[in-house]
Amino acid sequence: MRMRNCLIKSAGLLMILLVNLTITANAQQRPEPVNSPEIMDDHSVLFRLRAPEADSVQLTGTMNADFAGLKMIKNEEGIFEIKVGPLDPDMYVYTFIVDGVRTIDPANNIVVRDGSYIESRLMIPGELTDLYDVKDVPHGRVNAVWYPAESLGMTRRCMVYTPPGYEHSSGSYPVLYLLHGGGGDEEAWISRGRANYVLDNLIAQGKAKPMIIVIPNGNASATSAPGETPLALRLQQNNRAMGSPGAMTDEKIPVSLVNDLIPFIEENYRVIADREHRALSGLSMGGYQTQKTSNLFPDEFDYLGVMSMGLYSMFGNYDKEEHMAQLEALKKAGPKLYWIGCGKADFLHQSVVDLLKFYDEIGFEYTYRESEGGHSWNNWRLYLTEFAPMLF
Amino acid sequence: MRMRNCLIKSAGLLMILLVNLTITANAQQRPEPVNSPEIMDDHSVLFRLRAPEADSVQLTGTMNADFAGLKMIKNEEGIFEIKVGPLDPDMYVYTFIVDGVRTIDPANNIVVRDGSYIESRLMIPGELTDLYDVKDVPHGRVNAVWYPAESLGMTRRCMVYTPPGYEHSSGSYPVLYLLHGGGGDEEAWISRGRANYVLDNLIAQGKAKPMIIVIPNGNASATSAPGETPLALRLQQNNRAMGSPGAMTDEKIPVSLVNDLIPFIEENYRVIADREHRALSGLSMGGYQTQKTSNLFPDEFDYLGVMSMGLYSMFGNYDKEEHMAQLEALKKAGPKLYWIGCGKADFLHQSVVDLLKFYDEIGFEYTYRESEGGHSWNNWRLYLTEFAPMLF
Repeated sequence: MRMRNCLIKSAGLLMILLVNLTITANAQQRPEPVNSPEIMDDHSVLFRLRAPEADSVQLTGTMNADFAGLKMIKNEEGIFEIKVGPLDPDMYVYTFIVDGVRTIDPANNIVVRDGSYIESRLMIPGELTDLYDVKDVPHGRVNAVWYPAESLGMTRRCMVYTPPGYEHSSGSYPVLYLLHGGGGDEEAWISRGRANYVLDNLIAQGKAKPMIIVIPNGNASATSAPGETPLALRLQQNNRAMGSPGAMTDEKIPVSLVNDLIPFIEENYRVIADREHRALSGLSMGGYQTQKTSNLFPDEFDYLGVMSMGLYSMFGNYDKEEHMAQLEALKKAGPKLYWIGCGKADFLHQSVVDLLKFYDEIGFEYTYRESEGGHSWNNWRLYLTEFAPMLF
Repeated sequence: MRMRNCLIKSAGLLMILLVNLTITANAQQRPEPVNSPEIMDDHSVLFRLRAPEADSVQLTGTMNADFAGLKMIKNEEGIFEIKVGPLDPDMYVYTFIVDGVRTIDPANNIVVRDGSYIESRLMIPGELTDLYDVKDVPHGRVNAVWYPAESLGMTRRCMVYTPPGYEHSSGSYPVLYLLHGGGGDEEAWISRGRANYVLDNLIAQGKAKPMIIVIPNGNASATSAPGETPLALRLQQNNRAMGSPGAMTDEKIPVSLVNDLIPFIEENYRVIADREHRALSGLSMGGYQTQKTSNLFPDEFDYLGVMSMGLYSMFGNYDKEEHMAQLEALKKAGPKLYWIGCGKADFLHQSVVDLLKFYDEIGFEYTYRESEGGHSWNNWRLYLTEFAPMLF
């Protein structure tokens, strides 16, 4: 009887937990979950998807250099499977294509979002990911902050990383403004870039100075990442158009960065408010915006980092004379570091070669870092680990 | 010639943007996106999925009271479609089941996560969602903060909402500790609950006092939401087991809340550190933890809110004598508000009826709010809009 009561109690409890766990995701019958992705000792990876009713499943992801879909093989239990690698230790994202429909891996509860791309995450542990991982070191704080952007006529959201100890110190800190790429938003450098953990680890190792990082939204018509505003269904469609040529070359973003965001940060955080303690870096579209901002405001930043973006002469409104004059002013202002990073396989590599050539011609000094790989977060995370230690 | 140059330039720019936008998601050919979900004027909703190769697509979501899969119909273009509603203004989550595989809506870039459930979001605007929406009011800040939890032997992550004006004030604030349900984590009350925007709006309307909200992780063996720690693939599997009976009835969470988290918050934020300015509320598993914490620590909180959780006599280690003694102590301590909320269709409704009966028997005072609906975020968001105005 006692045993029976105990079983009834356990069954009742189990029911709560099961319903609790499934009800939010709708009470479909869930079969035993598959293990996916499974990392083998040699760092090859098994991807699995239970899909007995599907005819075809492909794997795509950043671990395939060409992003091609790899055919997964169905076993007699209806589980599609593929083994890839061994892979270099790093962070990758992937999706499955199930009978033509792209989906995240339902067995993996870690997804990362970059703009409208929501993908499953895979992490192969190693020396590099040690810099992205949550280690037993003091952690800074990530704040989601709304600020008035008068030059854009809106209140906008940005992410602010304050380094470990900021809250208990009375000191002031230097600031790195960090810009995302086309299609992204203010969450990308946290979600995909893991900028906060990179800095936690670099600071703990004494490799980077404690600094504040500010990540704005680089789309002039957006107030925030699409998930924030509930009525953003239309915005979400707009968001797809945000990386449009007009948005990308819009000078409103550099103007708002300098006239709205920097004053807000300097008023709201304990910041050393001079150019010697102010850095700006960005990737792809953000690399363009980094160039554009420093070209328009040569006296604002002593440290500049252009990732995966070169000469922007392909833009319709490019004016070489203006560009040269701006660079002369920037040269005169003399930033302490003008860093350019690009992967050999980056589709923008030639534009970077053109930029370096142009800078050489006019005697504009820079530091160039050429890496393997292409236009990818694997490179941009790596660049941050190398750029941040050079600052301040 | 000029025209041609211009076209070449535009083509080059377009290439950048397209590659930029697609490369992170792998360069699969993407057909024209469908519009999904499309909200009609009468608040019925059209869901669409382009899936010419799929045989069967179902829609599941919280807008179906029974969470059942609704068959979507394929048109001649290979687009599956279904119309549901009209729906009450509120936030819903949904997924598609494509040939048996659950997936988010690839046309909707807004997903919300509750524990391991990643679902697409739909918002039908109205009076209620006005309380969740980003309005033209001052916004508080959401901080992701790591803190030492000595009684659990780990550093853990929590979310901290500071109300508008906190940073520029020298005053001290009351604190609401807010607990998630089984399977969830410290992000759920932000992602699914939109607690920060609920408070922004209530405070702006003068309906709630400016307060700090602290949202810890309710799983005693977890340091944080699964996405934080890159090496969390194993953790992620553990996470599924975290809502286990042992974890749910583990007294470590109440102990760590009172002994680790509250002192940390009171040391790190400007807080009025007394019971009159300290509230605790939680849903489902968090409703159990709210009861358990106030039963174990009767003098800590003057405001208690138990959402969607009743008498926990179904738990194996339930001890009625102990429970009565604890409630006597709590009665003596005399909290100003002991609020209980439950939906009529909640599968735990009977346990709440049992709890009220038990409280009536021993003369323990409470306020009961019975709503329509079940064990859902629709109710928990609603409860927060009603509970927060009663505090402090």
